[in-house]
Amino acid sequence: MFKELNISTENRYQLVDITEEIEEIVKESKVKNGLLLVFVPHSTSGIVLTENEKGLKNDWIEIFKKLTSGIDFEHNKIDNNADSHLLSGLIGQGRVLPIKDGKIIRGTWQQIFLAEFDGPRERKVIVEIITKN
Amino acid sequence: MFKELNISTENRYQLVDITEEIEEIVKESKVKNGLLLVFVPHSTSGIVLTENEKGLKNDWIEIFKKLTSGIDFEHNKIDNNADSHLLSGLIGQGRVLPIKDGKIIRGTWQQIFLAEFDGPRERKVIVEIITKN
Amino acid sequence: MFKELNISTENRYQLVDITEEIEEIVKESKVKNGLLLVFVPHSTSGIVLTENEKGLKNDWIEIFKKLTSGIDFEHNKIDNNADSHLLSGLIGQGRVLPIKDGKIIRGTWQQIFLAEFDGPRERKVIVEIITKN
Repeated sequence: MFKELNISTENRYQLVDITEEIEEIVKESKVKNGLLLVFVPHSTSGIVLTENEKGLKNDWIEIFKKLTSGIDFEHNKIDNNADSHLLSGLIGQGRVLPIKDGKIIRGTWQQIFLAEFDGPRERKVIVEIITKN
Repeated sequence: MFKELNISTENRYQLVDITEEIEEIVKESKVKNGLLLVFVPHSTSGIVLTENEKGLKNDWIEIFKKLTSGIDFEHNKIDNNADSHLLSGLIGQGRVLPIKDGKIIRGTWQQIFLAEFDGPRERKVIVEIITKN
Repeated sequence: MFKELNISTENRYQLVDITEEIEEIVKESKVKNGLLLVFVPHSTSGIVLTENEKGLKNDWIEIFKKLTSGIDFEHNKIDNNADSHLLSGLIGQGRVLPIKDGKIIRGTWQQIFLAEFDGPRERKVIVEIITKN
């Protein structure tokens, strides 16, 4: 099953919690056991699983800056978003999670986030569910 | 096929080689061709594929420290493990590997590790195998 | 479906665009809807999705150096490639992408790259396609 979510971001770097939307799609799919792929068809955003805690979300912004600081990027002569591309490729544009008994297996503090690295933008999130044989 | 492993960790940062346990599960599954998902339902640990060499395992600890050093984390006012969350999200909580002719396709020096970022703790590793059509 | 690509790399750190080869394999497979796993059975190379722009590819080399600089690696006493192992594990040795209507869903600037961290070498890329039920 394929589904597409549309998400608007507001800041250059931002974590958007999409757990509820993804869980709704899994429920609607009626798939009992399988694999869930959450994927962004973009090269300047990503998907990350982390805790939805205000302070931690700010800490993510700080580590995004730290990881890409101190380099005079060549790509910025063309488009001022080398950092966005590098963070997207590094964090990764997708995550795969197990589905069991109709539910995503995930930890209590393991929410699903769209990670924006070049906002504000309109983003798509592709959700694909593969049923087990 | 779903299986769950229980792993006890001993140190704050630690790599635990779980290759043998995972290979045993693949063998038991009798799946010839498919996909293997190795996943932790946690937000302060991860899965990483790397060589099981003593010096390299220490180098991993050093790079974990380097990646998260020099930031005064907000989350630490609530729970002193912002570094653990960030490393978990960055490294990722899962890896997908191919299964062919009943075996995991992997390199000679590509072992499967649980990466602990907030130990000592009791961890679960979810192993899911999807058969090819 | 399994396919194996053989890729020769020329530099220690290098990004090799393999998008065309992967798309050809997806086309040949005649799979309409499913999942694509692109995976390297190696512990000193990786797979990354990013834009194929000359400046950005140089920026990737700079961030690879930045991420692993300033540490006196223990593994280098045995084999002088601790940085290669760490980057491989950090970036990850695989990516999973959706296939819909016979095509990989990906962004315009989201090309598929083999990331070499210990070249020049001969590398294998495993391509596995799982059909949806």
